[in-house]
Amino acid sequence: MIRSIDGGVTAPAGFRAAGVRCGIKKADLDLALLVADGPVSAAGVFTTNQVQAAPVLVAKDHLARSGHVATAVVVNSGCANACTGPAGLDAAREMAAETGRRLGCPPEQVLVASTGVIGVALDLAKVRAGIAEAAGRLSRDGHADAARAIMTTDPWPKSHAVTVDSPAGRFTVGGMAKGSGMIEPSLATMLAFLTTDANVEPLRLQRALGEAVADTFNAITVDGECSTNDAVIALASGSSRVTIDEAAYPALVAGMRAVARELAVAIVRGGEGATKLVTVRVIGADSTAAARQAARTIANSLLVKTAVHGGDPNWGRLVAAAGRAGVVFVPERAAVRVGGVELFRDGLPHDDRAPAAAAHLRGTDIAIEIDLGAGGPGEATVWTCDLSAEYVRINAEYRT
Amino acid sequence: MIRSIDGGVTAPAGFRAAGVRCGIKKADLDLALLVADGPVSAAGVFTTNQVQAAPVLVAKDHLARSGHVATAVVVNSGCANACTGPAGLDAAREMAAETGRRLGCPPEQVLVASTGVIGVALDLAKVRAGIAEAAGRLSRDGHADAARAIMTTDPWPKSHAVTVDSPAGRFTVGGMAKGSGMIEPSLATMLAFLTTDANVEPLRLQRALGEAVADTFNAITVDGECSTNDAVIALASGSSRVTIDEAAYPALVAGMRAVARELAVAIVRGGEGATKLVTVRVIGADSTAAARQAARTIANSLLVKTAVHGGDPNWGRLVAAAGRAGVVFVPERAAVRVGGVELFRDGLPHDDRAPAAAAHLRGTDIAIEIDLGAGGPGEATVWTCDLSAEYVRINAEYRT
Repeated sequence: MIRSIDGGVTAPAGFRAAGVRCGIKKADLDLALLVADGPVSAAGVFTTNQVQAAPVLVAKDHLARSGHVATAVVVNSGCANACTGPAGLDAAREMAAETGRRLGCPPEQVLVASTGVIGVALDLAKVRAGIAEAAGRLSRDGHADAARAIMTTDPWPKSHAVTVDSPAGRFTVGGMAKGSGMIEPSLATMLAFLTTDANVEPLRLQRALGEAVADTFNAITVDGECSTNDAVIALASGSSRVTIDEAAYPALVAGMRAVARELAVAIVRGGEGATKLVTVRVIGADSTAAARQAARTIANSLLVKTAVHGGDPNWGRLVAAAGRAGVVFVPERAAVRVGGVELFRDGLPHDDRAPAAAAHLRGTDIAIEIDLGAGGPGEATVWTCDLSAEYVRINAEYRT
Repeated sequence: MIRSIDGGVTAPAGFRAAGVRCGIKKADLDLALLVADGPVSAAGVFTTNQVQAAPVLVAKDHLARSGHVATAVVVNSGCANACTGPAGLDAAREMAAETGRRLGCPPEQVLVASTGVIGVALDLAKVRAGIAEAAGRLSRDGHADAARAIMTTDPWPKSHAVTVDSPAGRFTVGGMAKGSGMIEPSLATMLAFLTTDANVEPLRLQRALGEAVADTFNAITVDGECSTNDAVIALASGSSRVTIDEAAYPALVAGMRAVARELAVAIVRGGEGATKLVTVRVIGADSTAAARQAARTIANSLLVKTAVHGGDPNWGRLVAAAGRAGVVFVPERAAVRVGGVELFRDGLPHDDRAPAAAAHLRGTDIAIEIDLGAGGPGEATVWTCDLSAEYVRINAEYRT
């Protein structure tokens, strides 16, 4: 049994957070601190880009050196600290060290994340001041400010939390995330932080995080880009005294997946310039991998995304995208449904039904389903958004 | 020696053309006829999309059945005749048959191509009337009307011709093409028709076409899409009495490549919503294949395309795109140059040079060069365009 509750990333017992403004961005909050009451189990998954930002390298290094134990996560927005050479690596390490000094924990128990412009040096004086202020403001109510402080071009903050009833007892999972450009399925390009008050061994937490991410953060796309700074970090405080054994493990995955899915979908809904959330479901594929590949190709197709934006039930673009996805697609046995309305089946269009599909496309939650006609058991869902002139405006004017 | 000349697709001796309006499109010319004085060598390369339009299937079938000999090519715009089932296949066959009847040649010596909206039935009455009119208007001056009649959202017609001096003597190569959305490197999504008055055996013509297409039509991208109707067709009349043997073969490839490159670049320059032509050159790659893959990833990156549109010398997006291309990329030994200005080298930015790069980006011909730092001999060039709000407007409102 999973129930949504308030409280975001600090809903689970044992965590406090704060979000402050230290001046990296021209206005608005830009530094977040998430702190556990003591050393807790930690897990992380990071960008697959060969260019990895300094905070990603430092976070991975600290996870390894601490034996997957962490006390805090410090995050800044406005500066990605990527492509900044040895000085950038020093800055990311100092960001962790300063946080450790303020909180009285070893630096390797501090995980670091950054998001914003690439190739600009991090202003350490501002970061140090921000850490000092945030450390003094930590609270169970700090989740809202923290979620705001990690935003870049996101239109709104993203938080979610649930309670989970497991064989071992009830525990809580919380989280916060930011988008909203450079979003692509491997790994979805964003920052997300999950917390739980369940008692979980580090390796089990890492395994659960991997499972929860696979069909949530790794199943979204805004623009097919994969950033240098992607990170999903999970912390488990154990404060609920509910210990996750193998019997309770599925409930932990389910709880983390519930929070991750809510945050992942919120990232897409708040994608740069997005006006519609599009759920692309592929069925009838040779395999799950083939279904995922087809769903991603469709979800990243500019022609599909612009057709959705224009409210055009253009099944031809969906068929063309499926046809170039590099997986088995049999038009003569395929089907295309938009909002449940079948526009194409077994090689032939049903354009008399286009008005019903067009009505569905006027909404903000769009459902596209494609049967590849390969007759296999493979199916997958990918979430994407429409492509608007606003996306172009944002990215032609904003320096990532 | 290769020299540009006027005359487009009918510049080579032995060809006539016409472009007429038959009413498939609301306004403007929409049917083109390209006719040789008799049966000539023919070659073709077609879309790799698993969904292939009826005219693609018929053209491939006719090439095979005629032994790569053709007398005419008939093309309509405004209707792709794709995803139209058995009736669509009948319509494409009838389009060839009617042309054959008008010209007095067997139907399998007529190649067919269509471009426009997917999933709409071809109006055969209009097509028949158009063929009749076009057959009566064939001339050496018809190349301009023919190039206009194959356009969809293209902002201008695309024609080019050259004379080539070879060991066997001087011959001519001409061509016309249309874009301008659904353009992606394998196979670049467009129609192109090349002619030559050289005397070339069909198999040699097919081989030359494949070579000429590889680093021209297959090295361009507008939006990463691959259509159902792509086709490049070449006809060789032999009217120059210059016979292409192995000694003259490189000159034939060079001539076809010269015309194909001009048309390919023109397609990108006239890409939907494009305001800038971007040449992406990748060097220092492990292999040619790796260089091509990196160049395509960069050329299709929405963040790169919007940065170019906004005149932003954002080398960070170039580095991020190279890093996710799935080929060896070593940031510590890599370099990024925009308009010859080195903005990033050996892991470090040179943002003091950004103003010079920004000045280059205000032009309409943009040069981007990336050294992947892998130290290998691989290099490749891909042409793309910027992504503008106009692209979104065109594709949100236009039914392909």
